This record gives sequence, structure tokens and C-alpha cells, in this order.
Amino acid sequence: MQGENKTMLEGIIQKVRESHPLVHNITNYVTANDCANVLLAIGASPIMADAPEEVDEITSSSDALVLNLGTPNSNRVAAMISAGKKANALEHPVVFDPVGIGGSAFRSEAAEKLLHEVSFTAIRGNISEIAFLSGNVADFGGVDAGWNDKNEDLTVKKRLAQVFAKRIGSIVVITGEKDVISDGNTCVIVENGHAMMSLVTGTGCMLSSLMGAFLAVAPEAPLEAVISAVGAFGLCGEKAYERAAHAGRGSGSYHLALIDELSLLKDNAMGGVRLAN
Amino acid sequence: MQGENKTMLEGIIQKVRESHPLVHNITNYVTANDCANVLLAIGASPIMADAPEEVDEITSSSDALVLNLGTPNSNRVAAMISAGKKANALEHPVVFDPVGIGGSAFRSEAAEKLLHEVSFTAIRGNISEIAFLSGNVADFGGVDAGWNDKNEDLTVKKRLAQVFAKRIGSIVVITGEKDVISDGNTCVIVENGHAMMSLVTGTGCMLSSLMGAFLAVAPEAPLEAVISAVGAFGLCGEKAYERAAHAGRGSGSYHLALIDELSLLKDNAMGGVRLAN
Amino acid sequence: MQGENKTMLEGIIQKVRESHPLVHNITNYVTANDCANVLLAIGASPIMADAPEEVDEITSSSDALVLNLGTPNSNRVAAMISAGKKANALEHPVVFDPVGIGGSAFRSEAAEKLLHEVSFTAIRGNISEIAFLSGNVADFGGVDAGWNDKNEDLTVKKRLAQVFAKRIGSIVVITGEKDVISDGNTCVIVENGHAMMSLVTGTGCMLSSLMGAFLAVAPEAPLEAVISAVGAFGLCGEKAYERAAHAGRGSGSYHLALIDELSLLKDNAMGGVRLAN
Repeated sequence: MQGENKTMLEGIIQKVRESHPLVHNITNYVTANDCANVLLAIGASPIMADAPEEVDEITSSSDALVLNLGTPNSNRVAAMISAGKKANALEHPVVFDPVGIGGSAFRSEAAEKLLHEVSFTAIRGNISEIAFLSGNVADFGGVDAGWNDKNEDLTVKKRLAQVFAKRIGSIVVITGEKDVISDGNTCVIVENGHAMMSLVTGTGCMLSSLMGAFLAVAPEAPLEAVISAVGAFGLCGEKAYERAAHAGRGSGSYHLALIDELSLLKDNAMGGVRLAN
Repeated sequence: MQGENKTMLEGIIQKVRESHPLVHNITNYVTANDCANVLLAIGASPIMADAPEEVDEITSSSDALVLNLGTPNSNRVAAMISAGKKANALEHPVVFDPVGIGGSAFRSEAAEKLLHEVSFTAIRGNISEIAFLSGNVADFGGVDAGWNDKNEDLTVKKRLAQVFAKRIGSIVVITGEKDVISDGNTCVIVENGHAMMSLVTGTGCMLSSLMGAFLAVAPEAPLEAVISAVGAFGLCGEKAYERAAHAGRGSGSYHLALIDELSLLKDNAMGGVRLAN
Repeated sequence: MQGENKTMLEGIIQKVRESHPLVHNITNYVTANDCANVLLAIGASPIMADAPEEVDEITSSSDALVLNLGTPNSNRVAAMISAGKKANALEHPVVFDPVGIGGSAFRSEAAEKLLHEVSFTAIRGNISEIAFLSGNVADFGGVDAGWNDKNEDLTVKKRLAQVFAKRIGSIVVITGEKDVISDGNTCVIVENGHAMMSLVTGTGCMLSSLMGAFLAVAPEAPLEAVISAVGAFGLCGEKAYERAAHAGRGSGSYHLALIDELSLLKDNAMGGVRLAN
């Protein structure tokens, strides 16, 4: 943390473990099990529910809402809009993960509707997803469709995060080798994480769900909560590598070790989070 | 077992492993993979199918049906009612797991319809779910909506299980730190299990699926089959803790160890099941 | 390989790892997570999408399409037909996995429609599924509905694979203790694999997804690509047993070790694939 720990929330892991925030996930069926398990691992309670008939009620009794665009269908998108509005009305934190938004008009239209009708506390995606979601590439200086995770131009990523965050009034997280986080004013880089995270499906989804849990226990400091969630997950990604690599194991073991590390994480390990500007 | 082993079925693990009962699950997408894997681990065969167009046929060629209310939608609820009636007509065992029933009117209405139209061999839930499902709190002595797993008043749980079981003619299982099982007459407590089971999503769903497999091979003794399933799963929960904790691992490793232990379980280990009245 | 390595593709693992083919899966929710993770483990990129509104577009930007009939519903079947036609038009490889086809009229009608409207590069199933899918048992000599995996009459399996493959113009894979692969002319047996694979749900689904990845990088040699995929997966099944059994572990550990081995697999290990005629 090296002096930047003012942007991390002291004691937040313990706060999640003690208050067990209930996080409502409207999410895809590919990674739902992992999202539920990482929430339990950090001490939160997951509930997955996506029927339009029940999402408003489920969201009302939850502490945070996470909307994930993976494996979308028309009912689930309708449920997201309805639950998102309800969460907004109740002032619950709402996280949006625009999974694969550039992959189809159906996803991009759903995302556009969501952006129009729901206010998000935080949005997380990789650089392709956030560039696509932000819509107007002119916003951040002419980066074309060829953007991808290998683009290490942090200056451009920071500008994108900051301009887009300011425009929509959300915290924007662009995850990649280094994670860029901005609320439109401040911009922070989290340097933790490990390349093996990209060999496990749904690590992005898992982080979005964790962001919901952290936001739920720190409504007064959403930027710090998001930085803490991103830092905690990156740290666990590093620890999982040490543990799984130690025995020469592959991506299955790494996946399991990642959840192990989350369940073992304590605040005193958070000093291992490396932040930069 | 200490003298109560008359309520456990001798050789039932071997019976499941030899007869490979086919268990039809209409279940949620969060824990479906684990439910299938625990059924395979114990020697049963899983089939997951939830389209109204096919569930009657699938159920007809299965040996047991498990209805799980997680991530419900209107099609899946219609499929549950249809398959439940078919299984009743064929006298197949039917297990009901009212996941999160108190969370929305949609779930509670679905559960009510199911209770009205389908006869269940066994119902399993935590104390909140069973209290909610039983509907009339007067039934078991004024326990209010604040009920939760931490309520250790076993006398009240036993009364609820027994009164509700008698009223609906099903075996009722209330899982928690100690598991309470009643068929309306007898009431048995299973003292096995471990707190880490609550850090893995879907352990309740997994147990409900296992109950289906055990009931399928012991139609003549459903109460004993259910007690055996609950005892076996609790025992594996303890063994998994010993194995995972031995190496200082977290909830991911515990999850995996739980499935390992089920796949390694033999009847001669069932003496470790601790029953009480 | 013992002289038959002309039927294996040299360097194909490396080719998958370098070109990261994008594999579109329209699949069931029970094993979707594992299918995505095995694709990542081998170096491919998974995308799961099943909404009729978006599958054509998703398929268009993918390198292969895998259609899996597990947990079918009417929307997903419509999506499969639409995406299958689009992939055919674009000459993308298309794999079909007729999971549980004999279980219901709904599944068998869906499979029939798919066979009628879509051309498949390869079809994979167990002997029951392929016998059922081939429809006319006279095709392969009067084998009745009692067929199952224990039938070790390789001659009959080979005849079925070959006749059916010739009739429909696809590569046909019948997996079991030994795997039979034919394109209607050549017929190859892969002798790798381990019985523990049948204790993990979805190993068939995982192999079908892997076949999509291998076909994507070797359009000029589809039979060899399929043989390589089947051989690679069987080899990993054996290595996983060695690793998991070494520590006396059960099916949960075996499941994880299988994914580990896929992520660690290199071309120089492919000499362990045992082929026969």
C-alpha cells in the first residue's frame, strides 16, 4: 500500500465477515456457483434469483445487487432492469458487469437500456467491455475496436475510466494485468493479481460479486470499498498461485486455491495490496 | 449409533452403489453440478431436466424425483408440479427442497401449489424454510419469523418437524447444527456435520439429492433411508473437515473434500453416525 | 501411438494454445462451468450464449460451435438450430452432443430436427445415445434398446460408427471404455481413459467442447483433430487418476486433477495416446 492505504478501508474484511451482507445476484449460469462460493468465502451471503416475478422482492431484502450480463435472455434482462430500479429506490449499491457486451446487439442493447434506466454504484469489465460500453470512443481519445487486455497503455485506460465514470456518475473498474479504478475524480491502479486468473472462467464475475459485498458494508465510502475488493481479490490471486504452483498444479487447483485464499483472507494481509496512481 | 442403529439402514451405501438409482432433479442452476456430482459420488445416476415438455417422461424412467426451489421460474415450477404428480402416480419417492421459500411471494406460492398438488416422501429445509412452509406458526408453538439456524431450541424444532410431518404425511428434515428428522411419529436427531458445510453453497441441495437416491433403494423404509442419508452426509462433512483442515485449507478445498468423502464412503463407516432422540 | 501417429495431429496442443480459438457453446447449465474451464485449460476461449436473439451473431465471430442437448428447453433448441445453420453457412466446425437423447420424445425430436437442418462436423455420444440417434437399428445389425456402455462388442460399435458416419457425412465418436471414431471410411479406436471419468458429471460434455477447439485449429484435417482431442482427453483422464489416486483421493479430487492435467498438457505427452484399428 505504501502510503496510499488511505484509499483502502481498514478492517473491511472483518466487517464483511461480521455483518454477512446478503448479495442478490442476477447472473449467468456458467459462473453462478463460483460467485455464490466466493461470497460465502468472504463471509457474505449469496442469493441468486432471476425471475421477473420475484426479483424486486428479493432485492428489497438484500443489501446489494449485482447484475451480470453473461448468458443473457429476455426474461433475465427484464429482471435486471426491474431489480435495478428497485435497488436504486432503496439506495442499495448496484454493480454492473457487462460480460461480452460487444458480442451481440442483444447484449449491447440490454446494456444500453440498463445504463439508461438504472444508476450503478460501480461497473466492472475488461478493457474491451468498458470501451464498448462507454460507446463514444472519442471520449477517451480514439482507441479503436482492436483494444484488448494486452494493451498496456495505462494512460489511455485511466483516461477512459475517469471520463466514463464522470459521465455516468459510477465508479468504473477496468480489470486486466493492472486494474484501473476511477470515480471520475480520483484514479487508482491496483497492481495485484496473477495471469493464471485468466485460466479460470468467471474470475471477473466473482470480483463483481465481491464488489457487491464490500459496497454493502461501506455505503459511506464506495470508492474505497471497490478498491479494497479489487485489491483483496488480486491478492488472493497471487496467494493462490503460490499455493497451487508450489505443487506444480494446473488451473483446476488454481481455481480451488483462489476460493481457499478468499475464505482464509484477513485484514492484516491487506498490506500486501499494491496501489499506484 | 450407540444402540439407535435400528433407525439406520444396514448396507444402504452398498445398495445405492450396486443399484445405481436414477435420480431426476428439477433444480436450480447454481448447484446443479454439485448435485449431479454427489449423486455420482454415492453411486447413483443423476439426470437434470426441467422442460415441461419432457419432465413427465424423464421422471417415469427414473427411480426418484427431487424438486428444488432455487432460482425458480414459471416454467420450472410448472415442470415440478407435472413431474411431481407423475412420480406420485408411479409411487416414486419425491423429495422437496423449498430453497429460500420466505424470500418472495413467487416462491411461497409455488411451494403452496406444490404442497397442494404433490405428495412428498420427504421435505428438507433449514428452520426458516420449514417454519415458513408449515405456514401456521400456531402449529408448533408461536415461533416467529425471527427463526434462524442459530436457534438451538431443539425441543421446538422437534415439535415443528413432528407436527408438520403428521399434518402433511411426509418425512420432515430440519437441517442445522443438529438435524431433526420426523415422520410425524418418531423423531430422530442426527448430530453429525460441521460448521464449514455452511461455507459451501448448496450443501442443503446436495443432501436433498442424496435423500432421493437413498429413498429410491429403500422404498419399504423411507424414514430409515432419510436418516441414513442425513447421517452419511453429516459424517462426510466431518471427514472433509479433518482432511481439509489438516492442510490448513479453506472452503474451496473443503468443498472438494466433501465430494471426495462421499465417493469413498462405505457402510462400515456409518457407525460414526451419532443419533439422539 | 505405435505407428498410427499419422492419424494424430502433430503439434495440435500448441496450435490450440497459440491461436486461442473462440468456441461458442450452446449447452446445459449442469456442466457449463466445466466446459468453459476445460476450454481455457487447453488454451481456447469459451463463450456460452443460448438466447435465440444473439446466437447467430455470437457464432459468426466464433471459430467453432458446440451444441449440447443437456437440460434442453424450446428456446435453447431454437437457438441451436439457428446457430447451427449460421455456422454451416460460414463453414465453421459444428459439434453435436445428443445428451440423453433417448430419455424423452422432446430430446429425440430436437435431435432429429438438428440432424435434418444442420450439418455436423462431428457427433459424440455414448453407445446408447449414438444407437438411438442413428435411428434405424438395422443400420448396424439389430442391436436393441438394451445397449449400454458395458457392451464391449467393439466390432458392433465400429460398424455403427462407420455406417452412421457415412450416412450423415459427419465424424461419429462413440465414447466408452474404448472410444470408437469414424468418418465413414477410416475407423480408429482410442484406448486411453479411466473408469473414474464416469464418476464426474459432464466428462462427455467436456470432451465435446474440446473437440470444438481442436477442430477450429485444423479445418483441413477434421478426423485427425477429433482423434487428437479424444486421445488428449483420455490421456488426461489417466494422468488425473495417477495423481488423485496417489493420495487416495475421491471423485472431487479426480475432477480437479482432470482439469489440472488438461492445463498442463503438452504435445510431447501425446505419444502416450494408444490407437488401434
